[in-house]
Amino acid sequence: MSHENLSHPLPSPKPLLIVLSGLSGGGKDTILTGLRQSGLPLEISVSVTTRARRPDEKDGVHYHFISNARFQELIDTNQLLEWATVYGNRYGVPREPVRQALQCGKDVIVKIDVQGTATIKKILPQAVFIFLATPHLEELEKRLKQRRTETPAELELRMKTAREELEKLSMFDYVVINQPGKVDHAIADITAIIAAEKCRVKPRELSI
Amino acid sequence: MSHENLSHPLPSPKPLLIVLSGLSGGGKDTILTGLRQSGLPLEISVSVTTRARRPDEKDGVHYHFISNARFQELIDTNQLLEWATVYGNRYGVPREPVRQALQCGKDVIVKIDVQGTATIKKILPQAVFIFLATPHLEELEKRLKQRRTETPAELELRMKTAREELEKLSMFDYVVINQPGKVDHAIADITAIIAAEKCRVKPRELSI
Repeated sequence: MSHENLSHPLPSPKPLLIVLSGLSGGGKDTILTGLRQSGLPLEISVSVTTRARRPDEKDGVHYHFISNARFQELIDTNQLLEWATVYGNRYGVPREPVRQALQCGKDVIVKIDVQGTATIKKILPQAVFIFLATPHLEELEKRLKQRRTETPAELELRMKTAREELEKLSMFDYVVINQPGKVDHAIADITAIIAAEKCRVKPRELSI
Repeated sequence: MSHENLSHPLPSPKPLLIVLSGLSGGGKDTILTGLRQSGLPLEISVSVTTRARRPDEKDGVHYHFISNARFQELIDTNQLLEWATVYGNRYGVPREPVRQALQCGKDVIVKIDVQGTATIKKILPQAVFIFLATPHLEELEKRLKQRRTETPAELELRMKTAREELEKLSMFDYVVINQPGKVDHAIADITAIIAAEKCRVKPRELSI
């Protein structure tokens, strides 16, 4: 949209960096799959991880599954925007695809664990921070049990982590509730947040 | 939505007071008509005015058309949230319907001229301020000419006013562009802004 004929030009929408974080096991991947299918003009950043691929995951779609050595190489050559170790596995966000998409004017969404969000917020305070939550911790427990990828001890650790993650909520701009059976609602909320952010009088100025 | 089972409760969405302002002749009434028809659970505040009713306007829908004496009575008894004189006519927002709707948990939208927005912002800084603009001032001029309710001198005054109104843009949270023939887009933007505001981690605390 061009406003150059206005004596007082209106702000032009800038590409957004959207940080999707929230409870581990809260449905971030389901939401990203939904966003991928929604046809929104949105670049979905694919993280790198050293953890084992789950049966329903595709390399290059859900994650780039890489070795510890390769992960370390990416850190050493400053190719990661952010990285963290979560439950003994390493996760990172490759910097270059994010930078390129933003430069082309495309909105980018990155999925980051709550502990990584603090890092991103320091580097890029002008990103849009969305916390994905389940309506109740009980719901999260049920979801994790259904996934059957955790032992009881791991499950207990995850619930403790969830409580700690919720304490970080105030770092975020928005909280989206992922209700059971209502993924569409959460995706509609995220779509609305993106549309509203495009209408901000003071656009967020990213420098990446 | 109830979050009482969470050890760290999520913020509950609060009712919003949405202030729709922007260029005189920029299409605020068209947008309100669209919102009225959209079926959104939104209370649309009907302003009082001393100006003459236009042929396409309905008393009690677009405005309550009242006398100068009655308007003064409303001011004197503190029944107006805000009032202003624009082009020699008085406009005001009745306080009680707004307060009641918010108390019942309903979102309320009030239409206010740019000069009135500054007043509302002082009283209620936690309202959501939306500026409705045309893509170009030329478009506004065309729209006003089509309306044929202004003399050339009035038209010139309105264009000058529009430039002054645009200078106040920074008072607002959001700017929505009302493009010719695309009222639906502007309504979708406003709907998205409302949905996004409901997801805020720190809900706006209104005291009215």
